Amino acid sequence: MKVHVVGAGPGDPELITVKGLRLIAEADIVVLDRLVPKELGGEKSVPISSLQDPVRFMAVNAREGRKVVWLKNGDPSVFGRLLEVCAELSQWGVQCEVVPGDSSAIAVPELFGIPLTLPGVHSFTVLTAVKRGREALSSKEIPRCGTLVILMGLGVIGHLKRELLKVRDPDEGVAVLSWSGESRMEAVGNLRDLDRLSSGFKPPAVIVVGEGVKKRVPFAVEEPSLNERSCLRANSVMGD
Amino acid sequence: MKVHVVGAGPGDPELITVKGLRLIAEADIVVLDRLVPKELGGEKSVPISSLQDPVRFMAVNAREGRKVVWLKNGDPSVFGRLLEVCAELSQWGVQCEVVPGDSSAIAVPELFGIPLTLPGVHSFTVLTAVKRGREALSSKEIPRCGTLVILMGLGVIGHLKRELLKVRDPDEGVAVLSWSGESRMEAVGNLRDLDRLSSGFKPPAVIVVGEGVKKRVPFAVEEPSLNERSCLRANSVMGD
Repeated sequence: MKVHVVGAGPGDPELITVKGLRLIAEADIVVLDRLVPKELGGEKSVPISSLQDPVRFMAVNAREGRKVVWLKNGDPSVFGRLLEVCAELSQWGVQCEVVPGDSSAIAVPELFGIPLTLPGVHSFTVLTAVKRGREALSSKEIPRCGTLVILMGLGVIGHLKRELLKVRDPDEGVAVLSWSGESRMEAVGNLRDLDRLSSGFKPPAVIVVGEGVKKRVPFAVEEPSLNERSCLRANSVMGD
Repeated sequence: MKVHVVGAGPGDPELITVKGLRLIAEADIVVLDRLVPKELGGEKSVPISSLQDPVRFMAVNAREGRKVVWLKNGDPSVFGRLLEVCAELSQWGVQCEVVPGDSSAIAVPELFGIPLTLPGVHSFTVLTAVKRGREALSSKEIPRCGTLVILMGLGVIGHLKRELLKVRDPDEGVAVLSWSGESRMEAVGNLRDLDRLSSGFKPPAVIVVGEGVKKRVPFAVEEPSLNERSCLRANSVMGD
């Protein structure tokens, strides 16, 4: 008895893996996390918000012989509660098989032409601005060098800016990015203006700090998706 | 005129994205980086090692109207020289379109059941142990908290261990991981034994430092790939 925990990628339905798509085709039930495009699960879709106890639902169905896929946004091992969830399922005697997906932390900057590593920048750190239990990120946890990719930042933007400025240069480039298969929005400027830049965004957004923001990949053009979804694009570049 | 720079994922041909596979199907020429599975490019494959000037080759073919895909290991924006390569192509008047792929830095730990984030661990950093110009990583560049994912570490393992021990606990968990569609090998222990654990590995390997190494995801079973490749598995777990 098994549940496949599958990364759906950063939002564009074509950025799921071939293996992920195959497992969906073979599945009886596809439980979708919030933000996962519904067309991926098709008629098999069960939104996680409609379930009182999602793990119990998946375990019971797997035990009754149904093939269950749990589609998670991005990659399941990046802020995906993978450890807790698989431990819970194993208490039901149900195994997890994990299928990696494109993490939004890497793919979203990339789709805006922002490289995470470049000459002189040999590392990047992915952080969440709000830890579980609602404790906010402290400057001690922020590396002094390398690119930063910050998730869940919008709700604590004032605090986040203060903590960032304790360890990073106010003139460093910062980008606030919002991307899905349907819409995209970006604001680019200097770290000192992070709060101003992020106004007008709604969660989820990815915040990138570092050199790559000012050294964009030339001509990283994005093609519309195969499935011809309506492509609303609110491209607002606010620079200094 | 355009070259598609496509992430091939961490090695298993089924872990490329649906979009990446479609672009390969539509392409006339598929240039493969070292380590990318050859079956992905099929008869269109041109190994990059066979080309004297790969960028010139791709640019000339794109300018002559051929559809060119450049398949890169993992994700192109993670230590993939994306910025330099797209800048070079643009000098030929050729644009890059970038298609994200599953980065080995995330997918390889995940396929061994090692979560990068977990309760109490809210960040992870991806670093290369050898910077361009062959300068090795220094302890100043290594964050004191969060999970570390280190690439290119095998060639400088003694130096790497010394620098890690300046900022991290010798009792922290460490894993040396090697994974491709064809074979897998792991060694797990404490940071103080990193050099011993890594003996017997050949590049490329991924080194993970942090709590996730000792709190593995239960039952993260990997299925054999669809295409039934011979699955040689040298699973050697060396623990303390």
